[in-house]
Amino acid sequence: MDRSVEIICIGNELLIGKTLNTNAHWLTKRITLLGLATRRVTVVGDNINEISCAIQESIHRSPSFLLTTGGLGPTFDDKTLEGLAEALGRRTNVNEEALKMIKEKYLSYAQEGMMDAAELTPPRVKMAKLPEGAKPLHNPVGTAPAVSVKHKSVTIIALPGVPSEMKSIFDESVAPVMKKAACGVTFFETSITSTNVMESEMAPLIDKVMQTNPRVYIKSHPKGTERVPYIEFHLSTTAKDANAARNRVSEALIQLTELIQGKGGKIKPTKPET
Amino acid sequence: MDRSVEIICIGNELLIGKTLNTNAHWLTKRITLLGLATRRVTVVGDNINEISCAIQESIHRSPSFLLTTGGLGPTFDDKTLEGLAEALGRRTNVNEEALKMIKEKYLSYAQEGMMDAAELTPPRVKMAKLPEGAKPLHNPVGTAPAVSVKHKSVTIIALPGVPSEMKSIFDESVAPVMKKAACGVTFFETSITSTNVMESEMAPLIDKVMQTNPRVYIKSHPKGTERVPYIEFHLSTTAKDANAARNRVSEALIQLTELIQGKGGKIKPTKPET
Repeated sequence: MDRSVEIICIGNELLIGKTLNTNAHWLTKRITLLGLATRRVTVVGDNINEISCAIQESIHRSPSFLLTTGGLGPTFDDKTLEGLAEALGRRTNVNEEALKMIKEKYLSYAQEGMMDAAELTPPRVKMAKLPEGAKPLHNPVGTAPAVSVKHKSVTIIALPGVPSEMKSIFDESVAPVMKKAACGVTFFETSITSTNVMESEMAPLIDKVMQTNPRVYIKSHPKGTERVPYIEFHLSTTAKDANAARNRVSEALIQLTELIQGKGGKIKPTKPET
Repeated sequence: MDRSVEIICIGNELLIGKTLNTNAHWLTKRITLLGLATRRVTVVGDNINEISCAIQESIHRSPSFLLTTGGLGPTFDDKTLEGLAEALGRRTNVNEEALKMIKEKYLSYAQEGMMDAAELTPPRVKMAKLPEGAKPLHNPVGTAPAVSVKHKSVTIIALPGVPSEMKSIFDESVAPVMKKAACGVTFFETSITSTNVMESEMAPLIDKVMQTNPRVYIKSHPKGTERVPYIEFHLSTTAKDANAARNRVSEALIQLTELIQGKGGKIKPTKPET
């Protein structure tokens, strides 16, 4: 079973430096902890052709899952479903189930006294125009449903860009499916920080530990400079058995610590990322 | 003159959700303010084939500039230059100018008393192995030089992943070239926030303002929900003349404000992004 995932984040705001892409960060972390592996994140603007091309290219690489974020709302710049339909060579139609979801939301708003919510205007119907064969996913927080469609071997899920909506739909509808696809594989990681020894001096040590522990991936993250060395070592692995994963990482950690100390490095606990 | 830019961010830490991609955010903002336009951001892992494919795909789309971040350091997981060479069908060789830069850095560290810095070890020489025809760019902060190479019409610049190094090289060596390429085009943006009216009700207003002001891009960013509407409207344009850009956005802003208020919306100043 291939456990690969791709993410396409859609929105001009991500390409002009207005918005920091916290959605990709949140999703990649969750996907990793669920036992799957994100292979690529792509960011494109609010342009049907760009969206369609990015989706087609991703499908061509055959990930198990392709998630998109953004572009599901009622305004003209929300173009994800059109781009998705174009990529799949399908038409968009008003999906009755999606329309019902949207109708019920606005009805409840109207009942709460929002007079403008009574009518099913074209911008609201737009959110129910899904590619043929796609199905809507319940949005616990907002109005636009997410959209799921299978194409060849790829499960494509279009999530909204508003973080609270994206997260709640992921947790409710995507995470359970991904957990199942992971077939019990878990990810385990740990990290230590060392001072006093340059990264270029550490290179052969890392090589040595990875040779002895071929299933543990070790990555050095220089947080200082060669002149004032302050390096984080991140060790990770995936395994079917959580204990096996932990033991595997621990063995590599012990060997690495000894080698670093042998070079005169001082090991410190890693400060959490900000 | 095409003003398009692509960015490829390289690093497993970005795909497992360990590191938030602030590099892409910083670069896209700077590129926009310099008058160029980022068309795509791609994130791939520390894998020569993945890096090479992403670079080849980008070159195929012919942006004026392709920037990469990450993977220039001395350890085994730093694979950007190998991936770049593979994408261009070129070999890597020790570049004498790059080697000199690196040698001088370590010599200065050794002179400051870092005994381990005296020798030009293989991990240090590795940072000077550039694709044929590429040239190194001075790194004012760290050790690994950045790398610049022209391929067909694309200027490719490989920047380090450490933010302080990436930023200083961009400011010193990349920004001046990009500013020139922008030929005086400037970007202008402003934004307002409105409460009280749902985004779905705003859709026709935005369409109207964009029809009257076809060169202004207006994007609505829902910060609340349809039920408790809180929407940011971001207006932007690019023009050769900064005053023309400002006036163009101002005209659209006035019209949009009037239409929103006509619907019963309350305009508030936009809170800065966090």
